[in-house]
Parts: sequence; structure tokens; C-alpha cells
Amino acid sequence: MVSAQQPEGSPPPPTAAKARYELLTLGDELLLGLTANGHLTFIGAQLGRRGALLQRNVTITDEADAIVAQFRESWARSDVVITTGGLGPTCDDRTREAIAEVLGQKLVFDPTIERAIEERFARFGRKMTPNNLKQAYVFERGEVLANANGTAPGLWVEQDGKVLVMLPGPPNELQPMFIDQVAPRLAQRGLLLDREAYVQLRTAGVGESALETKLQPIFDRYGAVLSVAFCAHQGAVDCRVSSPSGALSFAQLEGVAGECAQLLGDDFVCYGHDTLAHVCAEMLRTQEKRVAVVETATGGLLSNAFSESCGACKFFAGGVVCCANDAMMQMLDVPECLLLQHGAVSDEAAVAMATGAAENLGADYALAATGFAGGATGPGGNPVGTIFIALFSPMGVWSKKLSYPGPRSAMKVRAVNAALDWLRRELLRVQRGAVPACRTGVMQ
Amino acid sequence: MVSAQQPEGSPPPPTAAKARYELLTLGDELLLGLTANGHLTFIGAQLGRRGALLQRNVTITDEADAIVAQFRESWARSDVVITTGGLGPTCDDRTREAIAEVLGQKLVFDPTIERAIEERFARFGRKMTPNNLKQAYVFERGEVLANANGTAPGLWVEQDGKVLVMLPGPPNELQPMFIDQVAPRLAQRGLLLDREAYVQLRTAGVGESALETKLQPIFDRYGAVLSVAFCAHQGAVDCRVSSPSGALSFAQLEGVAGECAQLLGDDFVCYGHDTLAHVCAEMLRTQEKRVAVVETATGGLLSNAFSESCGACKFFAGGVVCCANDAMMQMLDVPECLLLQHGAVSDEAAVAMATGAAENLGADYALAATGFAGGATGPGGNPVGTIFIALFSPMGVWSKKLSYPGPRSAMKVRAVNAALDWLRRELLRVQRGAVPACRTGVMQ
Repeated sequence: MVSAQQPEGSPPPPTAAKARYELLTLGDELLLGLTANGHLTFIGAQLGRRGALLQRNVTITDEADAIVAQFRESWARSDVVITTGGLGPTCDDRTREAIAEVLGQKLVFDPTIERAIEERFARFGRKMTPNNLKQAYVFERGEVLANANGTAPGLWVEQDGKVLVMLPGPPNELQPMFIDQVAPRLAQRGLLLDREAYVQLRTAGVGESALETKLQPIFDRYGAVLSVAFCAHQGAVDCRVSSPSGALSFAQLEGVAGECAQLLGDDFVCYGHDTLAHVCAEMLRTQEKRVAVVETATGGLLSNAFSESCGACKFFAGGVVCCANDAMMQMLDVPECLLLQHGAVSDEAAVAMATGAAENLGADYALAATGFAGGATGPGGNPVGTIFIALFSPMGVWSKKLSYPGPRSAMKVRAVNAALDWLRRELLRVQRGAVPACRTGVMQ
Repeated sequence: MVSAQQPEGSPPPPTAAKARYELLTLGDELLLGLTANGHLTFIGAQLGRRGALLQRNVTITDEADAIVAQFRESWARSDVVITTGGLGPTCDDRTREAIAEVLGQKLVFDPTIERAIEERFARFGRKMTPNNLKQAYVFERGEVLANANGTAPGLWVEQDGKVLVMLPGPPNELQPMFIDQVAPRLAQRGLLLDREAYVQLRTAGVGESALETKLQPIFDRYGAVLSVAFCAHQGAVDCRVSSPSGALSFAQLEGVAGECAQLLGDDFVCYGHDTLAHVCAEMLRTQEKRVAVVETATGGLLSNAFSESCGACKFFAGGVVCCANDAMMQMLDVPECLLLQHGAVSDEAAVAMATGAAENLGADYALAATGFAGGATGPGGNPVGTIFIALFSPMGVWSKKLSYPGPRSAMKVRAVNAALDWLRRELLRVQRGAVPACRTGVMQ
């Protein structure tokens, strides 16, 4: 990494892995639990992907005194401070003034920003109220980060050998501003890597500790220069390999990940950050096949997983969300006698639902999920969820029983992941040309 | 409020509105953006509902030094400190030891907890590894909060006139522990109210500033003793009225809210925290009617909103999630010529979809949502979303065009809310017996 020449005796600038990052998220709505703190999730993940660990996140109220005290403390101990929120036009947007006080800077009026705000209002046919001009005040020694999606620009200050980044609160303004403007600037100054810091493998269908045990022999060969982290998400586990000391190059890390993928076989989903639904979608597209969905317990979330992909019409034939037996029978030709004999939550019903969905929606594959989502939804009630999932494919149709203790929302996500993972494995087998023997009926 | 007698000269204990609350959320997974900080959202909301404002939330890494330094600072300036996470059995669970150091307390082994952990393992047929016994160590001067849903108990300490509450990280353990054990204890000590601190009105279909303008004459009559706060969520706005000074009783606040509700007419949804889908569900149940759903752009989320209600089978006839034209035609008898002439994203298609859903699923009402969800899903891409929604009722079928700029996920929620709100208004009219004139076809 090339760094600017330093005056003699002054410390070298921190590198990505060493830089102390702190995030100040401002707003009573966060402390009152009205809005989730998505800025922490987004910025923490962005920094982590580029080799920097966020050291601390502090959420405080909009009061000027609180902002002054907290910023002074954070600024003193950090190399980079990022703030979110409080840059808007109303009287409770006090961040700019409070921070200017700590930095000993004046706020000056920037007519370029005024014009940009006026143009934005004109474009949407709205009248600009005078309080909007507050957003045209910037630090006398600082830079402006243009906001393509809102009125309040971001602000960038370098002072005392540190960096301050102030970002607007709305996520659709903050996120592109961070990716397009902030990350490249931080990378230029050596405070973030200009590439991913780790190689991530996504896996499914295998638990965190089993995964670690399986991969340990590979990790052992590299010793302390290799760093490994696992993260579990409802039936899927991510594994990240990195080399914080830089002893292993990125190409070498890719080699390690490749070894892991090979050892994992079909438990390996993909490199990077793609979702299970996206991985299924890509295989369906390549194989020119379509999938249909029928679901009770998952309420629409399995359909939604496919519909999130771009151009879903190409591979997603549609979904049926049912609840009452009559809708299911009517739309999917599930025989009434079957439901009366076995119930709607059974292997037999799941198989009939998947078959009916594939046939009625003209799909090559179908996934069914039927179960008791449990009655109680409150935090005190944690019903045990039993769900049957079924997979219809050109080779046959099978069902499986799943049991997930825990809250309803987590159970839904686990069932969605289990169903998607089953389809993924079936598509993988077809892709390899290893056609399984034709089997029909229930398989537990 | 009754408080224990104080020694002469010592300050009175703080009340709910004055108590300084601070929340420490521990865990690298939060700072790396792997897990959203749901504890802030949950605990902030719980405190707010009982009249206390969380002053600050600090998220730090699992390192012992960082925990010691941060806890010392938070403890010094707060009346109540709540910590989450770091109580588990593994070597990176260091919170208990770090905090014992600051408090100058010893950790002692509690055989009751040991037995509870052993019993839990036995119940699930698993073998207890020795590291689990770490969770049986508690403060020598403190109390234990039993954990019905996991192995790590919560801890409660009163020292230096302050309260420390340590909660386990998993939400399904933390949330019931907070509601059932922590909130009542805090209320007993006067640090939380034993009732809701405000009366909330939920509204839909009217913007935040229009709502404020409409209600201002009511608020003006009460003056400074009344505090009002608004919170907007994608097409629905909540309004909270409270009296922090206590000058207005809870019954008087209910009176204010009643005046507001009356003035708002059909824009008023409910008091409290019920969702739009739940309010629709209750009216459908009372009127013994059922609703069906057909959706493209909302991908399954409209069906999921209904399926979240308990006993959804009673009022939810089912949903169809479509994407390709052929599935829609097949399942809902939407004429091909209509789709060819007007396209699947049109008033005409929305009306035909809603009608087809009601007829094929045997429902009295149906909601349709069809639109372009936009291509780009990344944070940099913010497609403009155009969605047509339609409502089928026994009185007729109508459609509406919606335009939502902004990110795809927010657009989906807004469309779901707009559709639910339309159904709610129609059900309200029927409930009042004010039957509208029969109208069919497109209405913009």
C-alpha cells in the first residue's frame, strides 16, 4: 500500500485493519424502538467486507448537549468517526451545529447546494420552504458529498489526522452515498481495503460445529496466518477465511476457500453473498426450468424469496398461499379424501400440494410447505413448529418432516431455507447429470 | 407513587421519566453487521411504552478490556444499566467476569442453576459439556432471573443506588424475561410505570404533516401539559399523546385520543399497537366474511400479512402469487386478450385478478396488487415503482394506481399497507350499514 510521505517523527497513518472506527447513530426514533438501527448493520458490514472492524456504535438522542459531549469523546479516541442522521431541515436536526462547535469550525453557506435543493423541489413540483436552506450550510474546511436521492448532502472533514463522515439518515440516501463516495475515499487514504478482506463460503444443511469439525484439517495446514469466522442464519452457515496479517494473498485465500468447497460437496452453496433463492434461480435459468410454490405455514415468504430475484417471471411459475382446505383443493386438485384422512399437515398432503402446484402452474419443479405455524405470536409464546415440506421434480416427488422449536418468525425462515436448499441440491444433481432413480411417494 | 423511606439527606430515587437508562449491547456480530440490533428496538420500545426514555445505546466488541471500560463509564452516569449478550458457555462470553470486576463483586457457583441446565439438556436428550457450568456462576450480591427458554439465566444487581440487569442474547430468551421479570421489578422500584405511558392512535392514508394540521386544534386546547409525537411507517402514521408532567390523567389522555379519533373518521385505524392486517382480520371475523389475495409486485407479503393472524383460516381464503401471465390466467381465469391489450400491470388486469381471486377462492373480498417492482435490488438502485391495486367486494370492484419512488423493499410495504387500508375502509362502511352505490370497473 502506497502512503503519502510523513513528516519525521509523526506516526504513520493507520491501515484498514488498525484504524479505529466509531459510528454515531443519532435519533430518538432509534432509542424509542420506532425504527431499527439499520445503519449499524449496513455500515458494520461494509467496513467488515473491506477489512476494518467497527469498534463501537453509540446511539444517542437528538439533543445538542448530548451530541457535543458524545462526539468530543468519540473524536478523541478514533481515527474515523461516521455519523448518521440529524442533517435535515427541521429544528431537531442539530448535528451539524453541534459538531462544528467541537471541531472549532464555522458553518458557511454553499450556493451550489442551494441550487441543487431548489432543482430537486422543482423536479417533484413541490414548493421549497425556507427551512430547507439550513441544509446548504457546510464546514468551512471540509468537502460535500452530493446526495442524488435527497436534499441533505453528506459532509466530509479531515482534521487532526482524523476523518469525519456525516451521512443523511434515510437509508436510500445513505447507502449509495457510502458505497459510491465514502468507501472509495477511505480506500484512497489506506483506511479501507480496495477489495474484499475475506473470502466467504455459504453453506446450507450442516450445523456450525459440524462444519468447523469437517473443515478443521484444511485450516490446520495454514496455522495462525489464517483467520476463520462462522456465522449461522437459520439453517445456513457462512464461513469467512481471511489473513489479517496479510501473510496469505487474496489468491491464496481463494485457494483455501476452493479446498473447503470441494470437501463440502453439495453442502457448499456459493462464494460471496448470494441468497439460496438466487442460487436456485440461476440454476433454473441455466437449465430453462420453472418452479412453483404452495405454502401454508410460511405464509407467502417462500414465494417472496423467488420474487425478489430480477426477472423472476423467467423461472418462477407462481405460488399459492393457502390456509383453508377448500382453497387448496380448488386450486391444486388436492383430493378431499386425502385431507380428511391424513390432515392438511402431513407427508401425504405436502406431496399432493407440490404435485398439484407443478401441474396446475405448468412448472417443472414445485416446493410445498405445510404446517402449524403455532398460535401465539407474542414474545412470551414460543410454539413448537412442525412443518412438512415436499419437492416435486421431473424425477419424482418426496416429502420431509421438519421440527423447529423457537419463535414463529424464525421457524418460517428456517422452513423457507430448508425448502430452497432441497431444490438447490436436486438442481445440482441434474446439472451434474447424475440422474437419481425415479421414486414417488413419501420419503422420510 | 409510593417509594421506600429514604435516609435523611440522600436524594430521592429517580422516577420513570427521570431515570437515566443505558443499554449495552455486546457482540462482534452486531458491529460486523451480521445480526441486526433487535435488542435496541425491543428494549427501547418497552421502556418508552412504560414512560422511560433510553438515553443511550452502546454496542462494543466482546473483548474484556472494552467491556470493563465501557461498563465503568455507563454505570457511573446511569440509574439503570441493561446489558445483552455474552452470558453463554463459550470462551468469548466474558461479560459476567468483566462486570464483576467493576462492581467489586465475586462470582459464586449456584447449584440451582446447575440443576436447571442439566435438566434442560436431559429434556432435549443432549449431553451437557462442562463449559456450560460457567453459566451457573452468579454475583455474590445479586439475584437470578430464571430463563425458561435457554440455559443462561439473567442477572439482577442493586448496588450504589443503581440497578444492573444482564440479559441473555437470544431474542426468544431475552424478550419474555424482560416482560415477565424485569419490567415488573423496575415498576416496583418506581423506575418504570406500571401502565402504558401514552395513548397511541394508529392512522392510515393520511400524511404526517396533514395529520398534525388536522389534530392541532384539539392539541391547542390542552396546551403544554399535553405532549404529542408522530411516527410514520410506509403509509401509516402513529400519533402518541402523553402528559409527562402527569397533569393529565390516563383517563384524560384517553379522552383526548377519543376526540382525535372522532375528528379523523375513517383515517383512524385503532388505539394501541394492532396491525392493519389484524384490524381487517377482526372485522372480517365479526362480519363472517373471507378475503382472498392475488399479488405480483408484493411477492407474497400481502398474503403473509393475513397469515400472521391467529386462526387465519377463518377469514383468509388464500393467496396467489404470480409472475408469469400464464399462471395468472390459468388459476384466476384472467382473459389472455385482456393481458395482451392492457398488460399485466394495468387497472384492467388488477380488476380481473381481484375478481378471479374472489371467484376461484370462494371469497367475499379480494385484494390484487400488480406492478413493476423494479429491476435493481442493490442499495445503489432505487427504481420508481408503479403498482395497481384492486379491491373486489360484494358491492363491486375497483382499482387504483400507486406510484412510490424509493427502494423496492419500502415500496412493497407501502403497497401492502395501501391495499390493507382500502379493505379496512370498505369493511368499515359495511359495518356502519352505509352501503355504497354499486359500481363496477375502473376507478382512478
